[in-house]
Amino acid sequence: MEQEKRTLIHGGTIITMNQNRDVLYNQDILVVGKRIAAIGDLRMYYNQVDEFLNAKGKHVIPGLIQTHLHLTQTLQRNLVADKTLEQWLDVTMRLEIAHDSESNYWSSMLGISELLLNGTTAIYDMETTYHTDSCFWAMAQTGIRGFAGKAMIDMEQPSVDVPAAMIQPTDVAFGESVALFNRWDGYDDGRIRYCFAPRYAPTCTRRLLELTADFSKRYGAHVHTHSAETEEEEHIIIDRTGMREVEYYDSIGLINPRTVLAHCVHLNDREIEIMAERGCHVSHCPSANLYLASGIAPIPKMMETGVNVSIGPDGSDNNNLSNLHEMRLAAYIQKGLHQNPVIPPSAEQVFEMSTLGGARALGLEEDIGSIEVGKKADIAILDLREPHTWPNEPQVNSKENIYTRIVYSATASNVVMTMVDGRVLMKDRQLLTMNLDEVLNKSNESIIRILNRTGLNL
Amino acid sequence: MEQEKRTLIHGGTIITMNQNRDVLYNQDILVVGKRIAAIGDLRMYYNQVDEFLNAKGKHVIPGLIQTHLHLTQTLQRNLVADKTLEQWLDVTMRLEIAHDSESNYWSSMLGISELLLNGTTAIYDMETTYHTDSCFWAMAQTGIRGFAGKAMIDMEQPSVDVPAAMIQPTDVAFGESVALFNRWDGYDDGRIRYCFAPRYAPTCTRRLLELTADFSKRYGAHVHTHSAETEEEEHIIIDRTGMREVEYYDSIGLINPRTVLAHCVHLNDREIEIMAERGCHVSHCPSANLYLASGIAPIPKMMETGVNVSIGPDGSDNNNLSNLHEMRLAAYIQKGLHQNPVIPPSAEQVFEMSTLGGARALGLEEDIGSIEVGKKADIAILDLREPHTWPNEPQVNSKENIYTRIVYSATASNVVMTMVDGRVLMKDRQLLTMNLDEVLNKSNESIIRILNRTGLNL
Repeated sequence: MEQEKRTLIHGGTIITMNQNRDVLYNQDILVVGKRIAAIGDLRMYYNQVDEFLNAKGKHVIPGLIQTHLHLTQTLQRNLVADKTLEQWLDVTMRLEIAHDSESNYWSSMLGISELLLNGTTAIYDMETTYHTDSCFWAMAQTGIRGFAGKAMIDMEQPSVDVPAAMIQPTDVAFGESVALFNRWDGYDDGRIRYCFAPRYAPTCTRRLLELTADFSKRYGAHVHTHSAETEEEEHIIIDRTGMREVEYYDSIGLINPRTVLAHCVHLNDREIEIMAERGCHVSHCPSANLYLASGIAPIPKMMETGVNVSIGPDGSDNNNLSNLHEMRLAAYIQKGLHQNPVIPPSAEQVFEMSTLGGARALGLEEDIGSIEVGKKADIAILDLREPHTWPNEPQVNSKENIYTRIVYSATASNVVMTMVDGRVLMKDRQLLTMNLDEVLNKSNESIIRILNRTGLNL
Repeated sequence: MEQEKRTLIHGGTIITMNQNRDVLYNQDILVVGKRIAAIGDLRMYYNQVDEFLNAKGKHVIPGLIQTHLHLTQTLQRNLVADKTLEQWLDVTMRLEIAHDSESNYWSSMLGISELLLNGTTAIYDMETTYHTDSCFWAMAQTGIRGFAGKAMIDMEQPSVDVPAAMIQPTDVAFGESVALFNRWDGYDDGRIRYCFAPRYAPTCTRRLLELTADFSKRYGAHVHTHSAETEEEEHIIIDRTGMREVEYYDSIGLINPRTVLAHCVHLNDREIEIMAERGCHVSHCPSANLYLASGIAPIPKMMETGVNVSIGPDGSDNNNLSNLHEMRLAAYIQKGLHQNPVIPPSAEQVFEMSTLGGARALGLEEDIGSIEVGKKADIAILDLREPHTWPNEPQVNSKENIYTRIVYSATASNVVMTMVDGRVLMKDRQLLTMNLDEVLNKSNESIIRILNRTGLNL
């Protein structure tokens, strides 16, 4: 049997996110194969490892987790800013439908290159109606941990404008999803997973949602959808079903620990209680909600009620995939809105949302989200010796300063190493599993090709 | 007479911010001495310049301008997060008063290093009660364009908690300010300027404000103060004077084109009208207002009424001095608050706030804020060929995409050159007028020393 690769991360300040929230100073991490084998003073291993990463003076954190993305939209960023939701959706949908398999692949590759440069190690993605395989190929090749799902739209007369070509018969939409599930769920020892992705209630029949709920229950499949992003969406569902959107999903059996609901801006207290009782997860997308003017999600109320909150950047309605940016915004937007500086989430709570909160949303809390012996080695290293993240925390015993310094000040440029399953994917700002020039060139060619195909003149 | 230095910036996409908002593709800029001498196809000069900066494939923008900072607080960043305003102010004031001249110098140097790495070329700063000279030394040495002023507090029983050592007799506070004005205003051919800085109305006597208004009128001196940051502040001034804060400042003659008011979160319509009529300037500080839970400023209303709005990062209540971050937040926070995606400011309007808006606030609209022949060469170059600012705008004629790409996606890491008065201060992410290692080391030593002096255990 081949010897597993051994990597030692030496001498960093380790923000463990273990149950005690221990911050360990000047300690080592031994990675054997895909998992963390030991943490402590491990000098006995220094000459016995295959790769030695010096983290002296640096901060070692659990890899960041983002639970709502559309990699299929990466190429569209900044094409429709400062416009109405209708204008934005029109362009988004027309460009999604104009994708070919190659353009969708480069859209994923461009997004993943940015994510790895940001210390993001795991994602929960929603694709478009077609070409979902190309996103899986990109995740498989680059080494990032990822769930993705084909967007399912099956309502012949959806309650919102959707290009006809995006609408499929129920059994086709669902059947293609099952085929993708069979092809990809569990790939590479479980690094790649499938999530069923009904786009959102205004575009899906009850039958499609029931098929999804049933499959999820029988096979433990994950479900990724939007909910309560806009007031209009709420009114559509109330008019159609007499229920609010979360109540409607719940009536179908979709509110449970296998489901992640993106956005959740317009919820009432009862919906929040249902989500907490059922153990459903939220992906909070603060940038996207501001950009599209959806509003600001009631995160303090969700936290108080016990809903697991994670963070996501969303798609082309956020023109950046930086988890660090999203954490900072999540930390202070509630303060400003409520004019209350001590309202949750604190910096530490926001950091938890992007680590353990994300791990819970993905059903992977046993494997990722913290740096602990036995967990998978999904790790990032930050070098905070830059002017914008300086001075160093002067009181080395202050755990709190560490979270605030990362959440309120750090940016992607501080991330110097990103590892998934014990494999180094980015080091010293260089991507190791892709050719960045090729990604940039092919991305640009792709967006020009699909823009021309749409005839859009932006 | 010594020949003036000639620098050529070659082949960039020039975002001029001239009256037509021209965006010029693949053109050159000739800088002679401190000013822009020519723009166009300048190949005849290629072999006749002292410095040739290749901007092919890059974006050339007017240097960014930030109109409300406290460089004296840079060292304090992240020490008091997620706390009440009272806790934050207590630490801020105690650390300010614990400064020595050297620590205040390194606080400025650290801030300026970050600013230059962010493409910021001009700042409008407010210092603390003492050691103001050390900020001026830092600005003088590093080459940044800057106004600064000593904070004046003269009320024996101020309406808010202030350490006794910060309070000076009126004539001392004002007299020291005049001495600093005489020493620094106009230094280095006007690159360095003085601004009188009464801290804010709850801590200043009417007499001090009257002396300031009178001096400003007689000598054209600039005035930098806070206004309407919190609701409590409004109530204090109403209780004391029967007027709202802007009305009170106006009754003293301080609302005029020589004054910049920071924050302006809690204004009524009449105050906004007064500011527009008098030609007073606002420094909008969105991050700081969220972080300290002050609220969200009524920027759309100010713009509609004709108030000149500029942007500032503020002090340790924003743990980042990035203008790009602040612009992005300013662009989408109003959308989310008002649930209106087309409410101003647009990306282009936000970009104007950080260029021409800042220039107007500083009374320098004839000299900086746009790239035009005859203006001073305060310029930054952005390299947007990074994953988070990609793809390239596919339709090269779309001016709008250029603003949205910068405002919604760019970060400091995209800035590859910063020039003030025709002098390159940062190139390829390297600072040319300071030793970054020294700045980082001395900054850290300084915050530890002053923290120990306060006895604060953070």
